[in-house]
Amino acid sequence: MISNSCIPLKVGICGLGTVGFGTLQLLKTNAEEISRRTGCEIHVVHVATRTLDQKKVASVPASGTDPFALVNDPDVDVVIETMGGFEPAFSVIKKALEKGKHVITANKALIAEHGNELFATARANNVTLSFESAVAGGIPIIKALREGLAANKISSLAGIINGTGNFILTEMGANKRQFDDVLAEAQALGYAEADPKFDVEGIDAAHKLTIMASIAFGLPLDFNKTYTEGISKITPEDIIYADELGYKIKHLGIAVLNGTQAEVRVHPTLISKSQLLAHVNGVDNAVLVEGNAVGSTMYTGPGAGADATASAVVADIIDLARTKASGADRPPIAMLGYLEPRSDLTVLPIEDIRSEYYLRILVDDKLGVMAKITSCLQDAGISIEAVIQKERVSQTVSIVILTDTALEADLNKALTSIESLDVVSGKINRIRVASLAK
Amino acid sequence: MISNSCIPLKVGICGLGTVGFGTLQLLKTNAEEISRRTGCEIHVVHVATRTLDQKKVASVPASGTDPFALVNDPDVDVVIETMGGFEPAFSVIKKALEKGKHVITANKALIAEHGNELFATARANNVTLSFESAVAGGIPIIKALREGLAANKISSLAGIINGTGNFILTEMGANKRQFDDVLAEAQALGYAEADPKFDVEGIDAAHKLTIMASIAFGLPLDFNKTYTEGISKITPEDIIYADELGYKIKHLGIAVLNGTQAEVRVHPTLISKSQLLAHVNGVDNAVLVEGNAVGSTMYTGPGAGADATASAVVADIIDLARTKASGADRPPIAMLGYLEPRSDLTVLPIEDIRSEYYLRILVDDKLGVMAKITSCLQDAGISIEAVIQKERVSQTVSIVILTDTALEADLNKALTSIESLDVVSGKINRIRVASLAK
Repeated sequence: MISNSCIPLKVGICGLGTVGFGTLQLLKTNAEEISRRTGCEIHVVHVATRTLDQKKVASVPASGTDPFALVNDPDVDVVIETMGGFEPAFSVIKKALEKGKHVITANKALIAEHGNELFATARANNVTLSFESAVAGGIPIIKALREGLAANKISSLAGIINGTGNFILTEMGANKRQFDDVLAEAQALGYAEADPKFDVEGIDAAHKLTIMASIAFGLPLDFNKTYTEGISKITPEDIIYADELGYKIKHLGIAVLNGTQAEVRVHPTLISKSQLLAHVNGVDNAVLVEGNAVGSTMYTGPGAGADATASAVVADIIDLARTKASGADRPPIAMLGYLEPRSDLTVLPIEDIRSEYYLRILVDDKLGVMAKITSCLQDAGISIEAVIQKERVSQTVSIVILTDTALEADLNKALTSIESLDVVSGKINRIRVASLAK
Repeated sequence: MISNSCIPLKVGICGLGTVGFGTLQLLKTNAEEISRRTGCEIHVVHVATRTLDQKKVASVPASGTDPFALVNDPDVDVVIETMGGFEPAFSVIKKALEKGKHVITANKALIAEHGNELFATARANNVTLSFESAVAGGIPIIKALREGLAANKISSLAGIINGTGNFILTEMGANKRQFDDVLAEAQALGYAEADPKFDVEGIDAAHKLTIMASIAFGLPLDFNKTYTEGISKITPEDIIYADELGYKIKHLGIAVLNGTQAEVRVHPTLISKSQLLAHVNGVDNAVLVEGNAVGSTMYTGPGAGADATASAVVADIIDLARTKASGADRPPIAMLGYLEPRSDLTVLPIEDIRSEYYLRILVDDKLGVMAKITSCLQDAGISIEAVIQKERVSQTVSIVILTDTALEADLNKALTSIESLDVVSGKINRIRVASLAK
């Protein structure tokens, strides 16, 4: 091993679940490699975890169950928060930053919902709050947006940023299975939580998208303005019809900046099969970014898992070690990419976006039905791009329509009129279509 | 615009071709965005270019035709070398580093073939030689390897790293066209140079692979040890047969580290259609990286073009501006990722690699031919995984064989015996098969 040119970085880990323990292990496994790259050794000097397993922390000088004791330990330079949840994670991070310690967190919910206060605290104390592992697991997408693409005005990004949801949609499509059936399998495989709401309703993706939109555009973090729609209403039939029209259905987080108007939305989305993004399957994540200089670049890989997420946590540690070794006296990079969030941007409500739409309408198989439906669309000023009508299998048939670009508010009006037609049964399944740059 | 917290960074650009002029333009176009992200203004204070066009440099305080005058200009903090070629580029960079100026270059040939001396000079003078734009254009792959994945032992990478070659293979496959025909089109479209050797013979890709292998494994830069084979012998038939076997043919740069033995090789390669990398088409680049913690991640986007390449050059400038603003007194990151190259690694000669192979053999359509061929393979200890024999179209037929994993030296012996059979016409077309992690 080469000689070390810097003082070891002393790290404390709060929370020894999947990611925390993965981080502890990775720092051991790859210690030599990390030292070769940084010239520094990284020492885990303190671990705090709810239920202490002595075997897991055998190599760590100090351990206990109190994260605040870890924060107060003068031996700890850098606090890694891998507890998850809002409290005590928030207070632990805030206290650590106030004590002038750098913090690394994998906690996307906390950053998306309470990041503004935490980043302000970090700035006030001249330390860094890092969070590469909070978005898309092991894929270094935060670094790409904040540094690699920093020369660009970013106009849009679109990401498959929840592996569970992507696994479910992939499996529904590949084997024509129902949502509930695949969800149960995902839970059995450990991909989905017992309460799958965060994954399948898009909340987890919305947390990640909120963070990425902030870095991409300089948008202030505001989770409440992120539109969120889940995948539980998608059926295998939708996937088949979309396929016939040349599309795949993916659960996307989409952020767009048009002038000073931003769109930040998570929903099931039809994307053209000619897109590479359409071929990202299973639990993998991928983010497609459009910049005014670089054009389209895409980043893909495992969005979860102990080792992949630990890879991102340790990359943040290495960044800190390298910065420290450079003699810097302040963090080199604004944590959300921009020195100040842009106060001139607004986020459009979902009714104000424009999109093409896929509609699946269950109708009685009677003469003149199509005329009635198209007339409702026409009244709302919406043109039709493609239609599929399948042979009758029972009393009712599915009509599938792909519209031209329309204002969502206009489409809502048209859907209300269509649903009120006596030949139409139940709710229309409406899925937005994304026209991605490539 | 927000107030600037740092002194403007003063940049000189040597060479005002595609990339150099693209950089000058991008710094103007996105000045506001860059300032929002760095707190710094970037001023181009000097341009040196072979043929001075006053219109192009109207906004630049100093300009001329002598790059050494630019290097000696005390007003220039950072020298951007976008002249290309070995001289005077090498001397310009060396002189600039010796004068304590940071240098940014897009010159992959120079880095791959003379990087060791230049990086040593940079280290001796406590400055940075940056080269993000030298590999895969606008894709921030150097940053991903050096920083984003720094927590990993990287075991392999595989990249489509020459857009011209990928365009040619994509077009040959999509429209069953011959190599020469598509090459002529690529030249007409401006994708390929008048002398296409660098692209289609794999030299350009080998330069980029040499650099990436160095960062991924800590391998000393040694371009001469990179095995290089072009795509000019690939036929539309090969692409069709590969497709039938479940593969695409791509011109890949592959680097593998097994213990202390490295493979660094550029050649046409069969990759499974289930790989996302197989679906990267046209002039796009993509790099798949396998790390022991993160697993497989892939990075894709435009590998060339004025704006995309300038995006990477300006990202390097922004890194320097941010580092400067942090108060660092030495470069934070080792330029090739490792503080010291690893002296314990060796690069395997191509004869010593193990691979599966695709073989296309032109034979007389006679009884017993297949038995003779398989017996040659068997004598060399090589098993067969799949065979395609097509109906006869003339006196001769093509037999396509997919072998199991074999040592290249053994395969070479078998090919020599097969080619000496009197029923076999001409040379066998042999293409390596890559078993990528995902």
